[in-house]
Amino acid sequence: MIALFDSGIGGLTVLKPVIERLPQYDYLYLGDSARSPYGGRSEESIKRFAEEAVEYLFDRGATLIIFACNTASSVALRHVQQKYLKGDKEKERKILGVLIPVAEEAEKHSKKGRIGVVGTKATIESQAYDTEIHKLNPEMKVYSASCPLLVPFIEEGWQSKPEATSILKKYLKPLKSCNVDTLILGCTHYPMMQKQFAKYMGKKTKVFNTGEVVAEKLANYLERHPEIEKRLSRANTKNGQGKRQFLTTDSPEKFKKFTERYMSMKISKVEKVIL
Amino acid sequence: MIALFDSGIGGLTVLKPVIERLPQYDYLYLGDSARSPYGGRSEESIKRFAEEAVEYLFDRGATLIIFACNTASSVALRHVQQKYLKGDKEKERKILGVLIPVAEEAEKHSKKGRIGVVGTKATIESQAYDTEIHKLNPEMKVYSASCPLLVPFIEEGWQSKPEATSILKKYLKPLKSCNVDTLILGCTHYPMMQKQFAKYMGKKTKVFNTGEVVAEKLANYLERHPEIEKRLSRANTKNGQGKRQFLTTDSPEKFKKFTERYMSMKISKVEKVIL
Repeated sequence: MIALFDSGIGGLTVLKPVIERLPQYDYLYLGDSARSPYGGRSEESIKRFAEEAVEYLFDRGATLIIFACNTASSVALRHVQQKYLKGDKEKERKILGVLIPVAEEAEKHSKKGRIGVVGTKATIESQAYDTEIHKLNPEMKVYSASCPLLVPFIEEGWQSKPEATSILKKYLKPLKSCNVDTLILGCTHYPMMQKQFAKYMGKKTKVFNTGEVVAEKLANYLERHPEIEKRLSRANTKNGQGKRQFLTTDSPEKFKKFTERYMSMKISKVEKVIL
Repeated sequence: MIALFDSGIGGLTVLKPVIERLPQYDYLYLGDSARSPYGGRSEESIKRFAEEAVEYLFDRGATLIIFACNTASSVALRHVQQKYLKGDKEKERKILGVLIPVAEEAEKHSKKGRIGVVGTKATIESQAYDTEIHKLNPEMKVYSASCPLLVPFIEEGWQSKPEATSILKKYLKPLKSCNVDTLILGCTHYPMMQKQFAKYMGKKTKVFNTGEVVAEKLANYLERHPEIEKRLSRANTKNGQGKRQFLTTDSPEKFKKFTERYMSMKISKVEKVIL
């Protein structure tokens, strides 16, 4: 099956468009809510948490793991790929991140050659977006800003309060003055504040949201990799919808309530796991 | 030795006055920064984290463990006391929380019989302060409010920004309208915003800070329990200052930088541990 891993609930902004685009597969979502948010933690801790999640998800039968978390993708993806996909394993299972697809779309879009990136401290300090964008085009100018308080506001459901907007403006002001024509929301929580980002940056700046880009690129990836696609479990029911399973490391009740509302779906059970 | 355990850096507001009051003992401080903040997590996760910390600290030779964290004290203290202090063990080692001393002082102070409590979601939902205050005096009226965004602001060093003050006012407004004459800062982070709390509540409300109360009560406790006091390791140097050791589950560099500034002391080494 396809597994999505996130530090908490942010990865649901990836799961939602992925399910809409590719409803036929079985999905397993793991949110490490007992240790979220990852964005302010050290590289060493994020790598350790990512290893634990990958081992757990492969044990549960995942063929393809998507790091639906920019922090984990920026800091730990290459590390877990090297550790868990050695030799023959690489043909049978994959771990994908969310950075490269978004970097590609942003690079394609930017006419001025000026791209802004917002994300957690760990994502911005890793300079992973800068690296990926410069691989595509060394001439691109990349301006970035970490926005550490936005995740707590979103997790609290306070993202529409005036204080949230005021803080968002403080974070974005330096980027806006750099005249970027493209902004990457480099944290899977941020689409929950997408309107505020778009409004402050103005109509001349295109805002890229990880989930939508990843859904399209994943469909494309599976077409190009039939050896992976044929291993994925999928719907054998009439409605063509695969199974959806949800796991969390903290309270299943809280996770279920939020996820049902955000995904507009009924979930029969959220399973509590310890990594 | 005396060990203090907190979810992160908040417990330093307890360690600082404790060291000032009782400088002669050796202290070991453990901040679980890789999983902070605890305040929004489930009871089950907080109990598990507290068990891991207690096992680790007793293994390192602690005689007395202080939960310098209101969330852990409210949710997990009784649980770990029952699990780790069975039979003979109880005479040799102790685990103390921070709630009872503060509840006692607040109850003594309140003339109107109206006490306000602020804390994390887990602390407020546990109703642990209500229970302790009502044990002392069932007539007391206790009004409480959780303030989940204050810890992220403080951890970010943004506690003096106007948005932090504005959010603090939103949280406190219902309590202020209850005419409390006493306010318990039921989270060890909050003393870092004590001036704002005091200013908004006004001169007629006395604000109690966990650390200062605990320091005095601990001195008193050790006088009454010589069987514990004599087991504590202490200074054998001329200046009369015991050893201070600092442990964290996340980045030692970040922890060291913050702690040296907050404690106004030089720390030779912060040790990284995995619980």
